[in-house]
Amino acid sequence: MIKGEYQLFIPGPIELSGEVLEELAAPMMPHFGTEWAELYKETTALAKQMFQTEGELYIVPGSGSAALDMGIGNLVYGNKSVLVVSNGFFGNRLFEMAQGFSPNVELLDFGFAQAVDCQRVKAALAKKHYDVLMAVQVETSIGILNPIETLASLTRDSGTVFFVDGVSSIGVERMLMDRWGVDVCASASQKGLESPPGLGLLAFNAKAWSLMETTSRPDWYLNLKVWKRYEPYWGPTHPQLVTHAVPIVRAMTVALKQMLKDGYERHIDSYATITKYFRTELERQGFQLYIKDGYAHGLTAVTIPGGKAGELVEYFKQQHRILIGGGLGPSKGLVVRIGHMGSVADRKHLDKILSIFAEAKSSVPL
Amino acid sequence: MIKGEYQLFIPGPIELSGEVLEELAAPMMPHFGTEWAELYKETTALAKQMFQTEGELYIVPGSGSAALDMGIGNLVYGNKSVLVVSNGFFGNRLFEMAQGFSPNVELLDFGFAQAVDCQRVKAALAKKHYDVLMAVQVETSIGILNPIETLASLTRDSGTVFFVDGVSSIGVERMLMDRWGVDVCASASQKGLESPPGLGLLAFNAKAWSLMETTSRPDWYLNLKVWKRYEPYWGPTHPQLVTHAVPIVRAMTVALKQMLKDGYERHIDSYATITKYFRTELERQGFQLYIKDGYAHGLTAVTIPGGKAGELVEYFKQQHRILIGGGLGPSKGLVVRIGHMGSVADRKHLDKILSIFAEAKSSVPL
Repeated sequence: MIKGEYQLFIPGPIELSGEVLEELAAPMMPHFGTEWAELYKETTALAKQMFQTEGELYIVPGSGSAALDMGIGNLVYGNKSVLVVSNGFFGNRLFEMAQGFSPNVELLDFGFAQAVDCQRVKAALAKKHYDVLMAVQVETSIGILNPIETLASLTRDSGTVFFVDGVSSIGVERMLMDRWGVDVCASASQKGLESPPGLGLLAFNAKAWSLMETTSRPDWYLNLKVWKRYEPYWGPTHPQLVTHAVPIVRAMTVALKQMLKDGYERHIDSYATITKYFRTELERQGFQLYIKDGYAHGLTAVTIPGGKAGELVEYFKQQHRILIGGGLGPSKGLVVRIGHMGSVADRKHLDKILSIFAEAKSSVPL
Repeated sequence: MIKGEYQLFIPGPIELSGEVLEELAAPMMPHFGTEWAELYKETTALAKQMFQTEGELYIVPGSGSAALDMGIGNLVYGNKSVLVVSNGFFGNRLFEMAQGFSPNVELLDFGFAQAVDCQRVKAALAKKHYDVLMAVQVETSIGILNPIETLASLTRDSGTVFFVDGVSSIGVERMLMDRWGVDVCASASQKGLESPPGLGLLAFNAKAWSLMETTSRPDWYLNLKVWKRYEPYWGPTHPQLVTHAVPIVRAMTVALKQMLKDGYERHIDSYATITKYFRTELERQGFQLYIKDGYAHGLTAVTIPGGKAGELVEYFKQQHRILIGGGLGPSKGLVVRIGHMGSVADRKHLDKILSIFAEAKSSVPL
């Protein structure tokens, strides 16, 4: 088998800590019983801290897309009206998903890698009532951080439910669901939550649930009404609908404890510090950052001129056994994307990346 | 954290081998790239051997219910006509799932733990055309093995698609999809496939796909049309729609290789031998087997008179740190269920269980 052949500096999945890997290999325990129920309750409570919510939080065996599908379908199935704000690949993905569930979905497209103009969103919301507004917090395809707090302020006192795709942001970016008024937020285990892939997380509040109560999507697995219907049926020792991906849940519990040991704010602030350092040094070397303002803190997209982005990705892989990301969508071939979440988000690891960038200038050459 | 506090003799999840646990803890690799694509192709090919099919096989991050939902919804969404054969909890679950997707679903209920009468199924199929016939191979709630080969013969030359819930059977029971004419079969990683929980598997043939092409379920994550649409988009290095539960896939590859090292038939036959031994010894001790004929080979339900089933489950847990299962549905309190899949399906482990049964006669007392 292939054991960690490459070190990961991609925008997810991320390198796991030794403690998280060790927990993955613990002997199997069942997905029911008092021991499991206690562990699951603890995991859920820790995860809620990452969303800064006292609302509900469901952990579903599956990828981040499972949590997105669960959140979107339960909100909009039928003919709910939806406005999707997009400035990249994953914003467009939200539009695609919502369109499957409702014929009544509109796209407010700011263009690839362009900043979201909240005034335009405000104007659109003033012109027509939408049941749901959707946006991505971090558009991973390019490393842009969207203004979620401001967008939330536009819907907080209205009947519109605000849905945020937090797959690439939760655990890295500040997300104060309750304070800001974000009604639904979906995420995944393998990025900012520093865990193995295999879990989707969906947090939501009472306002969102009120709208969900008016839908009845036809499926079973990602249908929140089914999850809620079975809660009393299975009893307190089987707190989730289905067989859970127990090793991933256990690993995530360890990861969440590590991240939260100095508190949520300290954890989030440390990302801002290390990202600023990395970006400054890249610019000092003469590289152009693809996103100048409103950038994300878990990954950095760097413009690579002369169509050499693919060559640089290969250089990292072949010469240094390091995986970095290429562009997605319109930026394909134009940028490389360096992920810096979890255990590689420190000076030691990023200095190594910086030295390879410096070396690549003459070796590739760039 | 809780490390394997209890040894598992439940009907899933099962105890994992040391090699499978070790693979779980391998450093993270991404869910894309040439290395991943090769591994994933190998895993898929090994899994197909367990279904004995040369048809298509999809591995979805999620539980067995995800694979069931994927299979059922893609076949029946809209108003497809469905006949569900049931003799227990999981047969009724198929009925529940299908009903969400179509108003045109009928239940042919043989009663809890009663043998499926194929003549009655034949008569029902002769009376009316159904788009889909559904049945569970192993009704885990009680340990009964349903006559899948015979049921398949009833639909093989008709336009009816035969869907089998193989969650508790694949890897333990003989399932010759192609030879018998089973059109769709869903399973999960944590039972007969001797792997951690977290993956659903769905195998199907061209006949099933013809029917699926006429449906368009509204969701994204479990929508096979979305999976197929993205195949050319993502290219050969990203063979699945979403971020995969990579550690579980890797662990399953190791488990499948272990199971198939002497060939499929040898693997399946060994279950028949050990199960017969276990059942004979239990009867020799004076215990009554709940299912006399047509029993499953991965678990055994034992009748415990005097309402002492719950007490016996606790006795195994407290005195021996061993988890066994209780009854589900109407058999709750009346039986205990001993799982014997994977590494505990041998004389050494089952002799230990037999000695505890003997001891419990005077200790509980039974």
